[in-house]
Amino acid sequence: MESGAEWVAVDWGTSNLRAWGIAPDGEIAFARSSDRGMGKLAPDAFPDVLTELLAADVDTAGTRIDVVICGMAGARQGWMEAPYIEAPADLGGLAYGAVRPPMPRSRLEPRILPGVCQKLGGAEDVMRGEETQLLGLGSLTPGFSGVVVLPGTHSKWVELSGRRIERFSTSMTGEIYEVLRTHSVLRLSMGGDLDGPERDVGFTAGLDTGIEAPQQLTAMLFKVRASALLSGRGPAWCAGYLSGLLIGTEIGGQRGWLGAGQAEVPLIGSATLCALYAKGLARLDIKTRIVDATAATLAGLKLARALA
Amino acid sequence: MESGAEWVAVDWGTSNLRAWGIAPDGEIAFARSSDRGMGKLAPDAFPDVLTELLAADVDTAGTRIDVVICGMAGARQGWMEAPYIEAPADLGGLAYGAVRPPMPRSRLEPRILPGVCQKLGGAEDVMRGEETQLLGLGSLTPGFSGVVVLPGTHSKWVELSGRRIERFSTSMTGEIYEVLRTHSVLRLSMGGDLDGPERDVGFTAGLDTGIEAPQQLTAMLFKVRASALLSGRGPAWCAGYLSGLLIGTEIGGQRGWLGAGQAEVPLIGSATLCALYAKGLARLDIKTRIVDATAATLAGLKLARALA
Repeated sequence: MESGAEWVAVDWGTSNLRAWGIAPDGEIAFARSSDRGMGKLAPDAFPDVLTELLAADVDTAGTRIDVVICGMAGARQGWMEAPYIEAPADLGGLAYGAVRPPMPRSRLEPRILPGVCQKLGGAEDVMRGEETQLLGLGSLTPGFSGVVVLPGTHSKWVELSGRRIERFSTSMTGEIYEVLRTHSVLRLSMGGDLDGPERDVGFTAGLDTGIEAPQQLTAMLFKVRASALLSGRGPAWCAGYLSGLLIGTEIGGQRGWLGAGQAEVPLIGSATLCALYAKGLARLDIKTRIVDATAATLAGLKLARALA
Repeated sequence: MESGAEWVAVDWGTSNLRAWGIAPDGEIAFARSSDRGMGKLAPDAFPDVLTELLAADVDTAGTRIDVVICGMAGARQGWMEAPYIEAPADLGGLAYGAVRPPMPRSRLEPRILPGVCQKLGGAEDVMRGEETQLLGLGSLTPGFSGVVVLPGTHSKWVELSGRRIERFSTSMTGEIYEVLRTHSVLRLSMGGDLDGPERDVGFTAGLDTGIEAPQQLTAMLFKVRASALLSGRGPAWCAGYLSGLLIGTEIGGQRGWLGAGQAEVPLIGSATLCALYAKGLARLDIKTRIVDATAATLAGLKLARALA
């Protein structure tokens, strides 16, 4: 590889595709990204998309090159299904559950890491991609055990014992925000600039309501509309309230996960979204530490490969 | 009026328009309906739509004819805004809050009844149409006081003291079901026949979960997807679970409204939906009585006119 990379780390999600060439010393030799996420691709399109993405950095001729992939590329409707490993699950063995989609006439030798599922006690749940971040967390903060929160479209709450996932739970918080904002009657109160200064005020009001009474979410949601009609609340306040109410409800409903013994809760995700969760958890006197999602993914892909 | 009607009662909602000619003895002289609900009409379209709907039953010439209208025709984006009366509110005075949109060169003399709003204690809320059903309930079951539930797209829980609304709360349960079924990732588990025999099984599972842990709605929703992926649950089970979980969450979150002193809770709505709520409330040992929504609307329009 002209780029100096020894192997390639890939995060192939529903919406986006990102790849990093990793040098023998572990440094990043190159980085590429595209919007050709799993959601837009038929199974037979994946090899060409990967080849094109790496064309400028990887010569066509030469020895085989290891490509370690995490995320939705391994879903049933992705490139090739990488069956879930079941929680409680040791993430150190993630690479042993990988599948190897064939790429004939190519130097690229892809492996897709599995996701993690949970079946116990009727609490069925699944993750794909987050397990790699959780493995990475262990190398970024050696010896960590406790609860981790991964805010996102589908937020995850995970109990980790070192490299072992004990149990986890998914909240559809981000997606509920999007579908209500876009498709429900509440959209009528959110036409316009959603990022005005009133957004913070609305967020705080919603957050406090959600944390205090998570059992009343379906009733409290309609306040978005009623507040616009009766109190002249603008789009930014309403969007902030909706966001705060949903995040507060998630935190209030899941607070039983947070024992007294944990000094701080790692939050893995985008800085903006993690800051909102940090504000909510602070309401319960819980300290948080924000871990960059990309750093966790990269650390996880490296460790999965090193442990294989 | 050739039809023998003395006046016309109208329920003009977002999606539909229904009208009944009422004879001097209170019997229904004619009934008409159309899909020309408020949501599809510009304000200046309402007079012609009403005239057309009644054309076969009401002569064009003659004395003025009273038309009493409830519902979304009185919303800000409807025919003419009928400002809300504020709770606590005496429904006996509903007609005094009516507005009279002009219909020049017509015998029809429309009055649109107001909705009810609530501002107290930050619990902003609104209703339009249900207030008329609640007034009607008082004439169908004289002397009733207590909590009434009106299941629907936007379910209402209302505390009534005779004809007085003390307070109320809206849950967006029906609409959340629709937007999640249609627009969220959960739709992937609900492509196909949603009315198979497994629907009841899923409904009961969701109902019990929602009633028991209403604070965990955002986490429990994702089980629709995970159960399809891991346990092979089909579309009917998933749709039933989603419906049961949302209704159970509404009931579980609102159960504080239901005091021990009330012998039974009236449910006003469609028979199918009310039966689902009755099943949920029975889990809490609460008896219910289903009141036909159309009967309540008609009784309310009659009483509103009689009391004016």
